[in-house]
Amino acid sequence: MSAHSTLPGAALPIIQAPMAGSQDSKLALAVAAAGGLGSIPCAMLSPAQIQAELAVLAASGQAFNVNFFCHQMPAPDQARLAAWQQALQPYYEEAGLAPASGGATRMPFDALALEALRAHPPAIVSFHFGLPAADLLAAVRALGCKVWACATTLAEGLWLQQQGVDAVIAQGVEAGGHRGMFLDMDLQTQLGTFALTRLLAQHLHVPVIAAGGIVDHAGVRAALALGAVAAQVGSAYLLTPQANTSATHRAALHSAAAQETALTTLFSGRPARGIVNRLMRELGPLNPLAPAFPLASAALAPLRAHAEKAGRGDFSPLWAGQAASLCRDMDAGDLTRMLAGV
Amino acid sequence: MSAHSTLPGAALPIIQAPMAGSQDSKLALAVAAAGGLGSIPCAMLSPAQIQAELAVLAASGQAFNVNFFCHQMPAPDQARLAAWQQALQPYYEEAGLAPASGGATRMPFDALALEALRAHPPAIVSFHFGLPAADLLAAVRALGCKVWACATTLAEGLWLQQQGVDAVIAQGVEAGGHRGMFLDMDLQTQLGTFALTRLLAQHLHVPVIAAGGIVDHAGVRAALALGAVAAQVGSAYLLTPQANTSATHRAALHSAAAQETALTTLFSGRPARGIVNRLMRELGPLNPLAPAFPLASAALAPLRAHAEKAGRGDFSPLWAGQAASLCRDMDAGDLTRMLAGV
Repeated sequence: MSAHSTLPGAALPIIQAPMAGSQDSKLALAVAAAGGLGSIPCAMLSPAQIQAELAVLAASGQAFNVNFFCHQMPAPDQARLAAWQQALQPYYEEAGLAPASGGATRMPFDALALEALRAHPPAIVSFHFGLPAADLLAAVRALGCKVWACATTLAEGLWLQQQGVDAVIAQGVEAGGHRGMFLDMDLQTQLGTFALTRLLAQHLHVPVIAAGGIVDHAGVRAALALGAVAAQVGSAYLLTPQANTSATHRAALHSAAAQETALTTLFSGRPARGIVNRLMRELGPLNPLAPAFPLASAALAPLRAHAEKAGRGDFSPLWAGQAASLCRDMDAGDLTRMLAGV
Repeated sequence: MSAHSTLPGAALPIIQAPMAGSQDSKLALAVAAAGGLGSIPCAMLSPAQIQAELAVLAASGQAFNVNFFCHQMPAPDQARLAAWQQALQPYYEEAGLAPASGGATRMPFDALALEALRAHPPAIVSFHFGLPAADLLAAVRALGCKVWACATTLAEGLWLQQQGVDAVIAQGVEAGGHRGMFLDMDLQTQLGTFALTRLLAQHLHVPVIAAGGIVDHAGVRAALALGAVAAQVGSAYLLTPQANTSATHRAALHSAAAQETALTTLFSGRPARGIVNRLMRELGPLNPLAPAFPLASAALAPLRAHAEKAGRGDFSPLWAGQAASLCRDMDAGDLTRMLAGV
């Protein structure tokens, strides 16, 4: 089997990972132009923004992967939010800020997002944190989109295949950003990319895409050797000029600090891998005071903005995979070709 | 570079992982006869037993890897041991046992172990949990042995290279059994096999051996693609007839339970990966009541023996890597050739 024959839309077995907050269609278009599959993260976009991005992508005539989160929005727990604000109070005082909140939140896929797909349905719609409700999923399929979803355990992969997804992304524990886990929120039984990719490739009949710790052609070859049909790469694309990665985030990726990442719930409420920074060190990366996803982020927004103005990432989610320290500044097209070894 | 040209002693780039308590020279000899590198774990052997094993190996004329732990033995903390016994008391009562302790302990490499190497020095001496004191290490080298050691982070790999080791084992978080971590005991920054192997292969000039989640030829090819010169395989060898794996352990590896492993300190005091069993579920795998390594195991020994007699692994360390559920019963020689694809 040709490694990428079972995936639509790209000549090379390289998928640029959707990275909410750090990229838009500019990156996806550059990846697609080089022969990879570009992705757009929609979790932090309004329906109007989604529509606008899809129109840009459609004009290119290429296939794209459009990614959504599908969490349940929790009812705000005022006591818990107050306790979180209280835990952050010393940082507010140090910065001379009044308690406040802000920043964009992360929305799940819903009927409005579905409508935003209608004018220019993408080749692929991928989901993180499980799948949306059956009627929404059926409506996505009715638009002619392939459906991909993320698994972090064998059980999740088998469940997704049972729901009829067209491909499963094996997100190993090395991966930067949010863990896609949804059947079992126990971090202690999360799997490394090596074991997870092999387990899913052996147990599933749908194509498996490996993700987590893949930063170069050697990594892509290893992923394909393990039975994946393609590799999904995130961190390496953060350092391309086509990404919107903040200066603070780029500086952290360039620094020795990038050698130490951890899973943390502090920045959103769900576990996500980022470079260890001051907040993670001082509160502990999995501090139970962080409110339910996605509500933890709002109270951090003023601290983050204040610190970033001073060039510090002390309160920023510095998403990065475990091999991010091997990444270098590179054009997204060149990176795509380097990953594929062409 | 030929993948295994930089490793002594084996035609194939396959290393049978040393697995204390589950194997002896019988397994190592079978692996060596098939062209792989056999290993002997010495952490639970007396100097006389080590000498006897080395004599058996030497008679074969092959090269072998002889493995030692090099932890510091803690001073027994009676209050802590009593608290641990107290935590286990309900299990003693359920089993109708009186509080007791037993079982073999794990000893660090010392002057007596060094003396045991003298008559038949092995080709390779490998260390887990760092390295022994400089004088002991120099004495091992003076015997003509190559020295290998285990790294779980880039910092540990760089430190070991600085100490002059001849090869570094990249032990990814997928690996079964004890984590070799020694510079930093923080589990939250431990790396997956994929990322760790690539990081060490890119940063070190000494050969890197990949370990963790490798159970078949696809896994070995992936490890070599990531820049490793060889793959070290544990779990798959547990199911060979040449291993001394207990009936309880074999049954667990054959069961669906093998799909769920976790790192636990309950069985020895140090984090080690095993199949999730009753004790791990009920006390939590990282319960802080477990005494310092290796003192946690003694109070469990009577419970373990009692349960195993009834065919239950409720109190047994069921060491297994994250891909162990892909392993099948197989002759150790056949397994070695299958891994190497010959």
